[in-house]
Amino acid sequence: MSIVVLHKSMSLDGFVAGPNVGAEHPMGEGGMRLHDWLLTDRPDTRDKEVAAAVSASVGAVVVGRRTFDVGVPIWEDTPYPVPTFVLTHRAREELVMPSATFTFVTDGVESCLKSARLAAGNGDVVLMGAETGRRFLAAGLVDEIQINLVPVVLGNGLRLLENLHHIELERIGLVASETVTHLRFRVLK
Amino acid sequence: MSIVVLHKSMSLDGFVAGPNVGAEHPMGEGGMRLHDWLLTDRPDTRDKEVAAAVSASVGAVVVGRRTFDVGVPIWEDTPYPVPTFVLTHRAREELVMPSATFTFVTDGVESCLKSARLAAGNGDVVLMGAETGRRFLAAGLVDEIQINLVPVVLGNGLRLLENLHHIELERIGLVASETVTHLRFRVLK
Repeated sequence: MSIVVLHKSMSLDGFVAGPNVGAEHPMGEGGMRLHDWLLTDRPDTRDKEVAAAVSASVGAVVVGRRTFDVGVPIWEDTPYPVPTFVLTHRAREELVMPSATFTFVTDGVESCLKSARLAAGNGDVVLMGAETGRRFLAAGLVDEIQINLVPVVLGNGLRLLENLHHIELERIGLVASETVTHLRFRVLK
Repeated sequence: MSIVVLHKSMSLDGFVAGPNVGAEHPMGEGGMRLHDWLLTDRPDTRDKEVAAAVSASVGAVVVGRRTFDVGVPIWEDTPYPVPTFVLTHRAREELVMPSATFTFVTDGVESCLKSARLAAGNGDVVLMGAETGRRFLAAGLVDEIQINLVPVVLGNGLRLLENLHHIELERIGLVASETVTHLRFRVLK
């Protein structure tokens, strides 16, 4: 059964990007610190395994419009080689990238999820973008949350878990690499 | 060597108490959820060991005035049986409790820490209270942070790590009980 997963690298103070996210600073100022573990020349084996497990399980991606706008000049392709759905208020035609297609969905999270689920088959629907993640969480549509907890206090930026209701979780996975603590939670409903 | 430790039970969204902390709700509304692991009738052995390790290492406590005001009617005693220093702007005489004494310090964090260090001997100085923890962190006076990460999104309340500068951490301890992930970080300076 396909599940909906929100996964994010997060600082101990809850930030998933630095301040002033935009073309100049796609991860916000100082926010690239959160992806050091992914982008280092000498990745920790456990970190690589965690990233590989996400890649192996993904069947479709839902991404917010802001993350799309900021990301697309950098990615040169879809973030994962699977059908990717952009949650947006502004319609536009499909964008065909080398390894998959971006489809723009303007009629809300539930409709977007329905399309993503269909496209994902047995794979997971992976959510990208802090606001998109929050919207899906608020709507009770997230099955699991994976937090790659980075040992840093950023002090400022964009929070992932904000303005939400009370949500009980169950920790179902824990991988500690040299630096990052990868926590996987099931959302209890 | 005595160290300064900030330790707190925290939700995944960074809250260490619910909203409206006060006499009626000492941990804020819904905030007791964060202490379930400590207060349950059937504590997990690993949770008990983590709590016991803090008790065994504490030599002195620094507590904020708000935490003192809210806590003292409930505690009936000092939170730990060691000299306890209340960081405050309002002077008052020492308060002698059954197992130790509260001393009120009005001339700032550094002076408060100096007194606590002297009293702690080889024991650790443990910080209580979110605001006090932040003030010590902002002043670069915290050596280690212990977060008892509780698998819940509270949605609202009092944040521990807020309005701080960039602080690099090193994870030096990890204990996963059935529910709580106890993370210990060294503050890199």
